[in-house]
Amino acid sequence: MNSGGAEHLRAEVRPADVAAVAALVAATGFFSAEEIAVAGELVAERIARGAVSGYEFRFADGAAGLAGYSCFGRIPLTQASYDLYWIVVAPQLQGHGLGRRLLAASEAAVMAAGGRRLYAETSSRPLYAPTRAFYRRCGYREAATLPDFYAPGDGKVVFERRLADDGRRMKRTRPFGQSVV
Amino acid sequence: MNSGGAEHLRAEVRPADVAAVAALVAATGFFSAEEIAVAGELVAERIARGAVSGYEFRFADGAAGLAGYSCFGRIPLTQASYDLYWIVVAPQLQGHGLGRRLLAASEAAVMAAGGRRLYAETSSRPLYAPTRAFYRRCGYREAATLPDFYAPGDGKVVFERRLADDGRRMKRTRPFGQSVV
Repeated sequence: MNSGGAEHLRAEVRPADVAAVAALVAATGFFSAEEIAVAGELVAERIARGAVSGYEFRFADGAAGLAGYSCFGRIPLTQASYDLYWIVVAPQLQGHGLGRRLLAASEAAVMAAGGRRLYAETSSRPLYAPTRAFYRRCGYREAATLPDFYAPGDGKVVFERRLADDGRRMKRTRPFGQSVV
Repeated sequence: MNSGGAEHLRAEVRPADVAAVAALVAATGFFSAEEIAVAGELVAERIARGAVSGYEFRFADGAAGLAGYSCFGRIPLTQASYDLYWIVVAPQLQGHGLGRRLLAASEAAVMAAGGRRLYAETSSRPLYAPTRAFYRRCGYREAATLPDFYAPGDGKVVFERRLADDGRRMKRTRPFGQSVV
């Protein structure tokens, strides 16, 4: 399935995104109150501090407002490793390719900035099985698991995608960029 | 070997610690300019924002100034997982048990706050072999390795120590607290 690109993707961060992101994250039913607060705070920090905050975004604007977004940035103290902090699609729009579009746009931005690998951390709980399957479908490998990391019975799974290898671009296993997903 | 407790350990953070920590971290010769800056910034953030910063410290004051320190805190979005962000001992004082004292004091503080596991991330490079051996001696296990995480050929090794198990204290394999190291 494909969203057909009905949503417009943008990198620009606007003040209204703070509340829109918190509402979107809450609407999924996946996240705790602390997680919802953190998601909004990252947007606020980007607005307050600009690029030095280390947080980059891609927002997908749909007919009914914010349809999804991603948040990523270079991991401090690493040369070229990036973290995908958040990727969220509105519940009623899931399963139509918007997550792939947001992920591909994020990967393209990371590569353009010289990033060589992108990490995505998620939960080992059954609730997150579709999330883990999503990353695998998108070319990520399970690099590590830390049992009970988030809470007893709730481990952290670290997915990794190598976008380039030691300064040399790898053969692309699928095209990067928004146009293909 | 044991430092005999000549250094005084304290939890209180003072404005002078910002520069003292940066100088200490620089003196080890282990860390990059970015890492030295980050170490000082965490102290400054603690002073500016207090406990809500999420950073706790143990400082070891010696005869010639700051002899070592540790920095740790709860990992956001986890129930009871803590990160040991920094543990540093002045070069001329290494190998006399001060690192163990700082680590034990940090673990005791994490347990007192309800923390159940402590993670320590370090490099896979040969330079850090003594650091990795230190964690193993102190009861940490290698929980994960992410190759090339920091830079090509410079992976991240995640060490973990379980301080308690699912709300119930584990049988102590060695006593916690400053008095034993």
